[in-house]
Amino acid sequence: MRTGGADVARVSRLSRASGCRGRSIYMDKIRAGIVGYGNIGRGVEKAIGQNPDFELVAILTRRPPGTLSSGMQASGMHDSGSQATNNSTAAILHVSDAPSLKGKVDVMILCGGSATDLPEQGPQFAASFNTVDSYDTHAKIPDYYRAMDAASRSAGLISVISAGWDPGLFSLNRALAAAVLPHGSGCTFWGKGVSQGHSDAIRRVDGVEAAIQYTIPIATAIEKARKGEGGALATRDKHLRECFVVAKEGADKAAIETSIKTMPYYFAEYDTIVHFIGKDEFNANHTGMAHGGFVVHSGKTVSGRHTIEYSLDLNNNAEFTASTLVAYARAACRYQREGRSGALTVLDIPVTYLSATPDETLRKDLL
Amino acid sequence: MRTGGADVARVSRLSRASGCRGRSIYMDKIRAGIVGYGNIGRGVEKAIGQNPDFELVAILTRRPPGTLSSGMQASGMHDSGSQATNNSTAAILHVSDAPSLKGKVDVMILCGGSATDLPEQGPQFAASFNTVDSYDTHAKIPDYYRAMDAASRSAGLISVISAGWDPGLFSLNRALAAAVLPHGSGCTFWGKGVSQGHSDAIRRVDGVEAAIQYTIPIATAIEKARKGEGGALATRDKHLRECFVVAKEGADKAAIETSIKTMPYYFAEYDTIVHFIGKDEFNANHTGMAHGGFVVHSGKTVSGRHTIEYSLDLNNNAEFTASTLVAYARAACRYQREGRSGALTVLDIPVTYLSATPDETLRKDLL
Repeated sequence: MRTGGADVARVSRLSRASGCRGRSIYMDKIRAGIVGYGNIGRGVEKAIGQNPDFELVAILTRRPPGTLSSGMQASGMHDSGSQATNNSTAAILHVSDAPSLKGKVDVMILCGGSATDLPEQGPQFAASFNTVDSYDTHAKIPDYYRAMDAASRSAGLISVISAGWDPGLFSLNRALAAAVLPHGSGCTFWGKGVSQGHSDAIRRVDGVEAAIQYTIPIATAIEKARKGEGGALATRDKHLRECFVVAKEGADKAAIETSIKTMPYYFAEYDTIVHFIGKDEFNANHTGMAHGGFVVHSGKTVSGRHTIEYSLDLNNNAEFTASTLVAYARAACRYQREGRSGALTVLDIPVTYLSATPDETLRKDLL
Repeated sequence: MRTGGADVARVSRLSRASGCRGRSIYMDKIRAGIVGYGNIGRGVEKAIGQNPDFELVAILTRRPPGTLSSGMQASGMHDSGSQATNNSTAAILHVSDAPSLKGKVDVMILCGGSATDLPEQGPQFAASFNTVDSYDTHAKIPDYYRAMDAASRSAGLISVISAGWDPGLFSLNRALAAAVLPHGSGCTFWGKGVSQGHSDAIRRVDGVEAAIQYTIPIATAIEKARKGEGGALATRDKHLRECFVVAKEGADKAAIETSIKTMPYYFAEYDTIVHFIGKDEFNANHTGMAHGGFVVHSGKTVSGRHTIEYSLDLNNNAEFTASTLVAYARAACRYQREGRSGALTVLDIPVTYLSATPDETLRKDLL
């Protein structure tokens, strides 16, 4: 474990370069930083260990850096063989030390929450670093895009926003299907599984000590979508949201329940069930991170109906999201090396940019 | 129905522009041509009818143009309402009249077969037009890419190759999954359904009057792929190929069967069953074009295993392939308008380029 002042000194000795420019794709490692060390941040650290073209330079946290240890280092995971191939010697720094990393980190992977962290942190970091994030408040994406585009464009840098699996891989498949079958309709189903974004939103409610939210797709709606009748389904028809909440001692449970059920974007448009449980039950039964879901698009050509389906079955949502962030971090660097700047989404980025494999090999092996 | 000489005169009156340059995306219609008027070509004609940003200028055929009529015109499909929105007044020309279309067609959609048509036609057309095709001889894609890249690059034009569903949408999802979960393995399954490429290949065998080929995935292999054990499967373990062939009178059936079973790339690596049947049985039972399949990728992060699956359930393979070609034709034009040139594949093209919807709307509605 490395902390604070010593690490600031260490990173100041790293070679200085202007973002990714002048660095060679396939030759120089991508120097990454992690901002926010929760589930996603820890997942990114692990994902970087699986991608030998990356090097983890620093982990930034708002907590006192001395109180954290890197998950990989703490668990000795780097000694376990096939899964983690990098030997992380990342510095752990306070988020206020970010300026010392300018020119020493090619891409900052922003792992804060969408509700309050990213709207503030995103544009701040995008002004000094290439960034990638999994901003997931769908209704506010256009605003966030504009803020990120302005910040990164004026800095000559790239920000990739909303690059998890939804928004992210699911968005890509929604748009792809709609482009191929324009006379059709698409439907997205999530779960059954744990939504980190929704669980995080509940944990920010006053009086909540711990919480988890399960998203549950409604079977009759799935059948309709596959027949091309998904367009008529209301948000409420497609999913239930079931929450298990541990309240702080003396907290007003009725007020918590109301705050959750009326929370805009996250819960207000759904039928939401809130259960209050004890901490022991929570720890015993509700700490998994399995999730998944699928995008269904059913459309017609002149003589036939066709169904396109993209599905994810995820054993650990945070680690999978982190893996997509690392792939899009690679793209951010490649774009900036080409002299481009501004905000991008998964819809703007070709698959070749996500891969560590040379384009020619991808064409030969996977086309 | 419009044919030959009169149509050459008509297209010579169309406004002349240098490919797509100087034409505005979202403003000017994309002027398309179709080369080859078989199942895919007819499907493209229908797909253009579903995409109001396209205009079909000409259909090119090697047959005497007077013997053909356009499917949409013949069936009165343009009057049927919601499905076909363009009013096709396409010229039907002999393929040798192609030079008269230079500057009048923004993109040529090449609908010939991969075995013999495209290797010759592709580079020829790429030297004078933006092109898109569904070249599907996987093993020869690198060679075809080089030939197309050279032809279109020196002409300052774009060629998009292998842009059907496999190669095409399946390739895109194979590469996407491998980029996100590099510690994993992917498997592609086709069918049960009719492979046009394989049926076409059989029809080119001496003595064959009519033929259809069904690709059949093997159930035990699918289960292995979902558990991440697909890497060990041989080509032969995953699919059967079942062929129904009508032989010409007096043809040597044993020779036909041997030619099919030993055909490189298409059949040699599979267990292939060949049935000889009469023309009546063929027409009664074997003229459908349903197909489909799925790409499974199973991979591990440090603490979990994840499965990504992309599936297509297609009622009419030719029409669906045609719909993907039209989406990629849009991309070819957009790239050329931006001043780029050379060959591209689905792996190089972001989803925004496939859609007629403005990027900002896609971000707002589908991200």
